[in-house]
Formats: sequence, C-alpha cells, structure tokens
Amino acid sequence: MGDSVAMKILRSHLVSDPARMKPGEEILIRVDQTLTQDATGTMAYLQFEAMGVPQVRTKRSVSYVDHNTLQTGFENADDHAFLQSFAAKHGIYFSRPGNGICHQVHLERFSSPGHVLLGSDSHTPTGGGAGMIAIGAGGLDVAVAMAGGPFGLPMPKIVGVHLTGKRQPWVAAKDIILEMLRRLTVKGGVGKIFEYFGDGVADLTVPERATICNMGAELGATTSLFPSDDATRAFLEKQGRGGEWTRLVADEDAQYDEVIEIDLNTLEPLIAKPHSPDNVTTVKSLAGLKLDQVCIGSCTNSSYHDLAIAAHVLRGKHVAENLSMTLTPGSRQVFATIASNGVLADLIAAGARVLESACGPCIGMGQAPKSGGISLRSFNRNFEGRSGTPDAKVYLCSPETAAVSALRGVLTDPREAGEYVVTKEPDTYDTNDEGMIIPPSEHPETVTVERGPNIKPLPVRGPLEEVIEGDVLLKVGDNITTDHIMPAGSKILPLRSNIPAISEFVFVRVDPKFPERAKARGGGLIVAGSNYGQGSSREHAALAPMYLGVKAVLAKSFARIHRANLINFGILPLTFSNEADYDILQQDDVLTIPNVRDQLRKGSTIEVVQKSSGQKITCTCELSERQREILLSGGLLNHVRQGHAAGGSAVEDAAAHLATTTMVSTNGQFRPGKPAV
Amino acid sequence: MGDSVAMKILRSHLVSDPARMKPGEEILIRVDQTLTQDATGTMAYLQFEAMGVPQVRTKRSVSYVDHNTLQTGFENADDHAFLQSFAAKHGIYFSRPGNGICHQVHLERFSSPGHVLLGSDSHTPTGGGAGMIAIGAGGLDVAVAMAGGPFGLPMPKIVGVHLTGKRQPWVAAKDIILEMLRRLTVKGGVGKIFEYFGDGVADLTVPERATICNMGAELGATTSLFPSDDATRAFLEKQGRGGEWTRLVADEDAQYDEVIEIDLNTLEPLIAKPHSPDNVTTVKSLAGLKLDQVCIGSCTNSSYHDLAIAAHVLRGKHVAENLSMTLTPGSRQVFATIASNGVLADLIAAGARVLESACGPCIGMGQAPKSGGISLRSFNRNFEGRSGTPDAKVYLCSPETAAVSALRGVLTDPREAGEYVVTKEPDTYDTNDEGMIIPPSEHPETVTVERGPNIKPLPVRGPLEEVIEGDVLLKVGDNITTDHIMPAGSKILPLRSNIPAISEFVFVRVDPKFPERAKARGGGLIVAGSNYGQGSSREHAALAPMYLGVKAVLAKSFARIHRANLINFGILPLTFSNEADYDILQQDDVLTIPNVRDQLRKGSTIEVVQKSSGQKITCTCELSERQREILLSGGLLNHVRQGHAAGGSAVEDAAAHLATTTMVSTNGQFRPGKPAV
Repeated sequence: MGDSVAMKILRSHLVSDPARMKPGEEILIRVDQTLTQDATGTMAYLQFEAMGVPQVRTKRSVSYVDHNTLQTGFENADDHAFLQSFAAKHGIYFSRPGNGICHQVHLERFSSPGHVLLGSDSHTPTGGGAGMIAIGAGGLDVAVAMAGGPFGLPMPKIVGVHLTGKRQPWVAAKDIILEMLRRLTVKGGVGKIFEYFGDGVADLTVPERATICNMGAELGATTSLFPSDDATRAFLEKQGRGGEWTRLVADEDAQYDEVIEIDLNTLEPLIAKPHSPDNVTTVKSLAGLKLDQVCIGSCTNSSYHDLAIAAHVLRGKHVAENLSMTLTPGSRQVFATIASNGVLADLIAAGARVLESACGPCIGMGQAPKSGGISLRSFNRNFEGRSGTPDAKVYLCSPETAAVSALRGVLTDPREAGEYVVTKEPDTYDTNDEGMIIPPSEHPETVTVERGPNIKPLPVRGPLEEVIEGDVLLKVGDNITTDHIMPAGSKILPLRSNIPAISEFVFVRVDPKFPERAKARGGGLIVAGSNYGQGSSREHAALAPMYLGVKAVLAKSFARIHRANLINFGILPLTFSNEADYDILQQDDVLTIPNVRDQLRKGSTIEVVQKSSGQKITCTCELSERQREILLSGGLLNHVRQGHAAGGSAVEDAAAHLATTTMVSTNGQFRPGKPAV
Repeated sequence: MGDSVAMKILRSHLVSDPARMKPGEEILIRVDQTLTQDATGTMAYLQFEAMGVPQVRTKRSVSYVDHNTLQTGFENADDHAFLQSFAAKHGIYFSRPGNGICHQVHLERFSSPGHVLLGSDSHTPTGGGAGMIAIGAGGLDVAVAMAGGPFGLPMPKIVGVHLTGKRQPWVAAKDIILEMLRRLTVKGGVGKIFEYFGDGVADLTVPERATICNMGAELGATTSLFPSDDATRAFLEKQGRGGEWTRLVADEDAQYDEVIEIDLNTLEPLIAKPHSPDNVTTVKSLAGLKLDQVCIGSCTNSSYHDLAIAAHVLRGKHVAENLSMTLTPGSRQVFATIASNGVLADLIAAGARVLESACGPCIGMGQAPKSGGISLRSFNRNFEGRSGTPDAKVYLCSPETAAVSALRGVLTDPREAGEYVVTKEPDTYDTNDEGMIIPPSEHPETVTVERGPNIKPLPVRGPLEEVIEGDVLLKVGDNITTDHIMPAGSKILPLRSNIPAISEFVFVRVDPKFPERAKARGGGLIVAGSNYGQGSSREHAALAPMYLGVKAVLAKSFARIHRANLINFGILPLTFSNEADYDILQQDDVLTIPNVRDQLRKGSTIEVVQKSSGQKITCTCELSERQREILLSGGLLNHVRQGHAAGGSAVEDAAAHLATTTMVSTNGQFRPGKPAV
C-alpha cells in the first residue's frame, strides 16, 4: 500500500515508535521550521528563554509581527522591540512590522515542500499549500520545538479530498473550503489531515491552495496539504527559491482513511453566515442583502490574485456609497507588486481604504463595523464580537464575491458581474528581504533583550495537587471558541505579554464577572459542552485561566489545539464519560477530584465528585505517557525543565535568570520566583 | 495706504461696523465655506440641528472623516454613519473615510482664493496656502456659520512675513515655519494674521505654502495666508478648478502692523524638540540622535512632494533596522498619484509602513512609539503624551530630514544626503471625486439621520447664574493645551459624540481624579497660568468641563480659539488683572463671584472672592457686546436660539425635536430635555 504525501512527510519526521502510527495514538515528530506572531510570540519566547537554550535548534525559526500593529499605546511597540532583540540574540529571523502577515510571508519566503512547520497560530496550515505539514500549536509547543524538542500529536486520520472537474468563472478557491465547511462543520476535521488530490489540483495556484489549507483550520483539522508539483515549482522559482523545490506527490496506490469527493464543475459561490464559518449557504440564496462594510485581506485571501481580482471588478468605478471597503495586502511583496503595476492605484481611485499589511480587521484590530452592521469579509472567522462590534453580523466569502458586492452595495453572486478576467500572477516577485526580514545577530552575546514595561514575567504553576477542589466558576455550552475564553481585539490583544493584566479579560464576553469571581474563590473548574476551545490557537486561553486558578475543564469534547494547551499549562481536560452528566452540573457547584495524581497515573478514568450531592461524575482523560507526565509536573515548562525534552540539556544555565523572568504560584498567588522542579 | 491680501478679504466679508476694524475690537465676518472633521463634526452638527435650520446657508460646507478611522469599536463607524446621513439631509458634502485629511482634501478640491473658510479644526489655516482667510474655530461657531450667521473674532493685527532669497537644497517649507516658531514661540501669533510676501514667495508651491499656513496654528495665530498668484493658478488648474482662480495680491503700498524678515538663503534644516513646537533648534546641533520611529504625513506634510522626496531618499535602499517608519498620504488624490507613478512602490519596497490616508499617529490614533521611544515626525504638534506613549519624545521636522534620518537610523542633517532632486509635481491630479465626496441629497426629506448608540444628545446649560460659587477644582501652570484638558488618542477620541462618556477623561493626564472630584463637588472653577487652551480647536475642552459643572476659568492669559469656546459654552474666561494673584489661589479654595450677571453687564472687571480669606481677586473679562450676551444666555446655542444670529429664523421648527436631541441641566445634572430660553 502506497503512501499519501502527508504520510511520507510524517514518516520522514517520526521520532516515536513507527508501529504506533495509528489514528489517535500519540506520535512525536521532528520540527524543521517554526513561526510565531507577535500576539503569541512574546509568551513563546519567554517560555523558550525559561528553558535556557541559547540558540534555536531548528532549521529555520521566524518571528513575525502582524497582529498588534495598530499601536494605540506603548504596549505594541514594546513587544516589537522585545521580539526584534530576542530574535537577534537567539538565532531567529525577524520579520518587521509592515512586512506582512506571518502565513503569507512564510509561504512566499520560507515554505519548503516536505518539511514540517510548527507555528503558534492556528492558521499555520497555510504552508500546506506548498506541500508542507504545517501545524498550528500553542506557543509553548513551539518553544519546545525551537529548543530542539519534538512535537507530540495524536496520529491523525489522513483524509483524501478528491478534486475533479473545473471551476466556473468567478468560483474561487475560497468556495472549495467553504464547501468543505458546509459538509463537515467546524468539528468535522478533528483528528484529521486533509490531503487534496486529483485532476482539480493542477489548476490551483500555490496561493489558492494556501487559502484552502489556511481555512482548513476552521474544520478543526490537524492540518491540510497539497502535493508539491509543477505549480509549486513555478511558485518557488518566482520567489527565487527554486532550489527548495522537490516533487512530492502521493504514491499511485496511496490509501486514505477516508475520501471526500468535490466536483468543481458544480461548485457555486458560497458564503458563511454569522456567527460560524460552517454556517454556509450559496451567495445566490442571500443575494440583495444590504452591506455596510466589505473587507478583503487576512491570511486567507490577501495574495496578489485576491487584490487583483478586486481591482478588475472596481477599475474605473467606485465602491458603493452605502458601504466602506478595506484592503489589507498580505505581505510587503504583495503590496509592492500591486503598487508597481497599477492594481493598487485602481483600488485607491475606486475608493477602497488601504490598510497596513497585517491581520487588521480579521483579528478585531480596527475597522469595527457600525452598531448592528453587516460586514462581508474574505476572511476565515466570523465569531460573534470578533470584529470589535458586539452586535455586528459578519459573513465570509471569496474576494470575488466581496469585490462585486462592494461595487453593487448589496450581496451579489459574482457570476452576475460579466466577463471573468483571469488575473495573471506577475512574472516575478520582489524577493529582496533586506532590511525587512532581519537575520539573527552574528554576535548574539552582544545583544541585550529589550524588556519594556509591557513584558511581564511568565507565570508557572507548581506540580499537580493531590486533590483538586473548587467551584464550578462557569458553565458554558457547545462550540465555545478561544475568542470566548480569551478575547482578542484592539483593547485586549496588546496585553498578550502581560498575563496578570490580560487575565482580567478571561471570559468577559460570556460573563463580565468571571475574572473577579475566579480570583475571589481562589480558582476553580469550568464546565463546557462539545468542541470546547475551537478557533485560534492562542495559548492565553489556557495560560490566563491557569493564572486565575482554573484547575480543570469538564467538557463533552475539546478542540485539538486547545486541549493540548490545557495540558501544557497543567489544566486537566476531562471529557464526560456520559454526556448527560453535563446537565447535572451547575455554576457554583463545588467539585472535588480526590487523589487526582493517583487517578491520573492509573489510567484514563477520572472520578469527580459533586460535593453537595456526593454524586460521582465519571470523566475520561485520554493521555499519552508524555502528556500524563506533563500534567503531573504542572505543565510542559516544568516538565521540560525536569530534563524530559529531547535536547533539554541547558536547563542549569537558565536557572539564574528564572527568578526574574518567571512568576511562581504560592497559595494561588503568583509572585516573582523560580519554579520548583 | 494700500491693503494687504488679508485686509482685502476681511473687508469684503465684513458685516460689522468698518470703523471698528481696529486690532483687538470684535469684527463679524461672513463665512463662505465651512469644514468639519469627524472628531469635532458630530457635535457641530448636533448643534446645527438644535438651531433648526434645515439646509446649510454657506456656499460650500464639507464634512470630513479623518480622525477616528481606526475603528477599534463600533463608535467610529456609528459616527461615520451619522455624519454621512446628516450631510445628505442638510446640504453638506461628505468626504468619506479613506478620502483623506480634511485640510489636504479641502485645499485640493475646494480651496478658493479670496474666500473665507471656517473649520472646526485648528489647522484650518492650511487653506491660506491658496489665498483664503481660513480660520479654525469651535464646532459651535462653525454650526452658526452653517446656519448663515457671521463669525466674530477680535480684529487681528496683520503681520507681513517678508521672504527673501532662495532656500538651499534640502531646506524645506517646514523649516520656514519652524523658524517662525523659533523666533515667536507658541504665543507669538496670538491676535495676528501672518501674511507672507516678497520674492521668496513665488518659488513656493501651494502645498508648501499650505504647510507654512497649517503650522501657523502653532504660533497661536488667527490665521496665515499667501497671495493668490501664478503658482496658485497652476495648482488650481491641475485640480481642474482653474475657474476658481483669481489674482489676489497685496497693494504695492500695503502696510502691515509689523513686518518679519526671513532670509531664505541662510535658513537651515530645523527641528522642534519635545514637548513643544517652539522648542526649535538646528538639526545639525542634534545630529546623531538615535531614533526609534520616523513618521511622514499629517495635515502639515502629506502632499505629493513630501512623499516623493522620501521615495527619492529611500529608493533601492531600506529603512534602518533600528526604527519603524510610517507614511500617511494626505488624501486619496495623493495616494492614487503615488500608487500610479512608482513613488509608493519604492517606499513599500524600502520597508515603510503605509497607513490609511488620515490623521493617524499625529492625533495618537495608532503608531504609539515604544516606552521612552524617540520619534521623529513631519507633523505639527509634539505635546507630551499626544503620541499615545506617555514617556515618548517626539521631534518635529521636515519630510526631508525625516526621510534621510530614517535611512541612517539617526537624526541627520539632510544636506549630508548628497544631490537634491527636485521632485516635480505631477502634470495632472486625479480629480474624480465621484463616490468619495458625496454631494448632499436632492431629496433631503427622504433622508433619515442615523443615530447609533454612540450619538448622545447634546448637553446645553441654562442661563448664567446670579452668583457663581465653587471650589478651585484644579490649579495648572502655563501653556496648558487642549490635549491636557480633553485628551485625544485612540481610546478617548471615539467618544467625541458622547459627552457624558468623554467627560470622564477631562484633565486625566494632569490629574486622574479630576472628573470624579468635579462631579462630587457639583462643578467649580479652574485656575491656570498663561496661554491656557493652546493647541487643537476641540470645543470638547470647553463642552466636557461645562458638563462637569465648570463655571469659570481664571488664567493669566488664554489661547484664542479656546477662549472663544469657553464663551460659547457659557464658561467665564477671566484674566487676572494682577498676575501675582495666581499665586494666592490654591486647589480646593472656595471662590465666589457675586452678582456675576450684574458685574458682566457693567464692564470688563469681574471681582472674585476667596471665601476663606475674604480677599478680592480682580479679573478682567474683555468681551464684545455679542460675547457678553452669549455668556449671559449660558452659551452661544442658547443665544442663537433666542434669535440673535443673523438668519436664525427657523428656531421654532426645531423646538419639537430638541427634547430628544439635547440634554439640559437641572441642579447640575443633565437630563434629556429642551433648553430653557
């Protein structure tokens, strides 16, 4: 039986027992490249620093700045200075603010077929467009990878997505991934890698493939990828990196765990309605919806084609008077290209608002719609409130649909727009990174890391307690996103390097009194429905609750990255053995987990007691041996510092500065100090 | 004796007694054009609405959106929707967000030699670059002008600024105004119009002249202007508005009240140090200062030349690695021009961060420097904290100095940069405003004004009390700016349409407890040094204190626009007759102004009693008859509604909706209701 592309890459990077490459069992893989962005990066680097490894041990690690670029206070620029100096000192490439969105820039400048990329951003799978296994993870996992450690994940099922036929004009790559979301929902990809194959693949450019892989994150997938073929070669050659190319396709007799068939001939322009990316229907069925805002950009759709098609639609015309249209080019390369060939001039003349090349409105950094506004966006997420306006309604679509609708003022099936002009990718790209992607210092010993007042020490909890007892601090329903747990947006995101400050915002959009309650009660537990922690990879959704004393989450099920983050920060992820038990528990119930260390050591069953009734709630906590040890240690950082990570030899060197760069928990209060190991 | 240009325009617009055109006496002039921006505009339009005039009575009124464009919450977009619908209904042109900074766009698209422009922004004098009398004023004055009323101001002295010789290469128009500030200080222009003349004028383009007039605001001047000559004609013709041109130069025997000589031959690149625009020295004397940020843009220096010179400096090179460089084109026209001729492509390739065409970092809307950061900016203000970073140090210079320094990483005299290439203005500009400057509706009765939750009713105080008694709520020193009184920045500026909310920020950078104290004590008085209220024209610096119950300000002297705003909102501006009395008063003193209505009616002397000591403090309050009536009425809006404004006939029509669009004061608490008149 032949191998899929995914299996080939996993096999070549496997450092755990090959016999255990069975769906669901934990495997460990070697990581070639890492990426971070600024909102997760500061914490990842503080964690890397706490491990005491002086220089990264990956083939290539890159630090991007793309989230916190509004700079409405000193915090963002302080973070940028920290990241730039940290990168210089520790062997990391630094992509400066203004150089673009991490995924787009990484695709252009660093993607490498057959390699494994781990990134502290949930849309890291974008790199799958160039034939990589590119996985989003918490910052701590990325820090471990930078220190030379492997990445552990449950062996995913490999699902083949068979693309056949040819798209109609005006039907976009975005519509392929929206079709996947329509069929599979935001839970449909959990534990799976989607590998695209078939005749329909050749005709997709690398940036189009990247769009599909990027938004595969919304399926909850481990990752998505495409083969590395002639289109990949053409892309890399234009990037001046033809030498990175290698042909990497599935064996003819490759077997997939499942196969999904998509007939491109019949695909229509699709749209995701508020407030979930899987709430998908046809554009046609909603045509005429009056719009207040149209946004093109984000890591999903900010490549050359995405902006060029908008210019094609708007050239010589103007954005409808009833709406505001924004554009965020995905990278400096894209921005420079459209600035030099007239695309940008046409868009500006048409009245589009051009924003800096960054995440921007997608992460709620500006361009919040008006109260109750209808916003149509070429982005990948439309969670309630994420736009910055609590009652705004955000729809997700292709740039084609967005541009045509911006012209008309109402949602419009782009096939009504007349002739489709294939926007030709430029023959060359601006591949000069000088001054914008700064290589690490050749004299790292001379570099001092800049720590402005927004860079606060890293909290590290102690080892797992013998008994967990606490209140149910909050009970929530299904599909809680990390945006619910730890909101982003322009007011909160700047605090990502400051856990004491950001923890004041945990769950505030669900219950504004949560942080106060958690602190008053000295921590406690959370009860949740299914798919808890979907969405962004932000480990702050585990780290900040940990800081508030959250010890365990009882849920019907967990999203993959968030579950891993909970384990990494020493919070127990418990799954109800009987989902009906969810109904028994209420906020303010006192729960006890007796002998929790023993229970964990003995197996996957964990008994939780509702104190008032004495009723036992049986939960499961499926863990690999490594994960079990991590939880017992009180989190991955403690675990690594105990010498468990591959390559974790330099722990002693770090001890001296840990007292100033970390905070440890004493009786539930975090104070500066060195974690007990 | 012949007339200056300024005198010709004032004479042709005078509606008060010509015999009283003597410096210091109040004159009333007819207003041809008005402009507002969004941060002052929402309030100005609420005030206009309260006057009940259905359509503006000016030749041209334009509503711009340039301050609040970050949109970090729903407030900004709510304001934009209000402004757009209000403009459509009331005969106002609406320049959409993204169309650029009000002063740059107005210069390009609406400036008209010989006309009078009144704008609710302190940098309105920019229009003087095209031979206008363009004056900044509070929003309420602008509202009155829109309603057809005249504008009252103390007759200024006309100061001739005689420009001779020729600038060296790399010496900019900005250096001329910095030289003026070096000589005259931020108080040196009070009560004056600066009229530039002489051989050195011909060689300045209209945008360069506009830079000089713009930053004349920092001198405290009433306004600044240039003649309308061949350069003006060339500019207007390229704007497709040659028909607006008329030659307007001073008579050969024109007399000025004073003359200032500037020899351009000897002028050097200059720089204003923190934290005042008059803290001027040569660039050379500070050369080598390490920079963290360089910003080119703002209403002072965001025209084509300003960006083109930066591109000339940076072409094929890159921004130094130790700093971040931002660009904000001044208008969509400038942006489209640089996007179509390669200037923008060069700047992006060099690593500049391109921001939306708006006020941006100049008003603290983003790009706050890092803690303690050194920021070099081609802007017009460098007040402490205005950048968004309390301890940042902001320097002001020409775009030439900024660009060369951005390349080197340290402050550099641009004359070191080698050959100066004169950047040729483009032969044509993009003059198609369609879709971006939206004319008023032809069917205003069909338009409904959109009032999102951020648009709160306008507070209007009752008539002046018989006795004022209250605590000294705060004692401040000299040169307090309106940024001290009512801070701007990304967190506060979005509340400009919501006086109850924004009043929570009055004086917070001086004393965070001020709003709480003012409310607890039911209002009171302020004691200040000289030049109180310099800087921005924002009437919120009078309106929000009024809302908090501030009844009078005792100061050594006042800045012009702020003094007018205090009168407009019924707050007494009292000047110490004996400056030494300033030292007698302390915070928390109780002051009484007995029989204040009688005292005001009797003349310009106002006696204030320090209650504890019984000591009498003599103040002066020089008022025109009109201003006296305004204060007695409790502010201009009450005064206008009593039928005092020229053309104020439609007051009755407005009565019906006043109860829902205004709040009135009852025992110091504002409640929805119709003001008593």
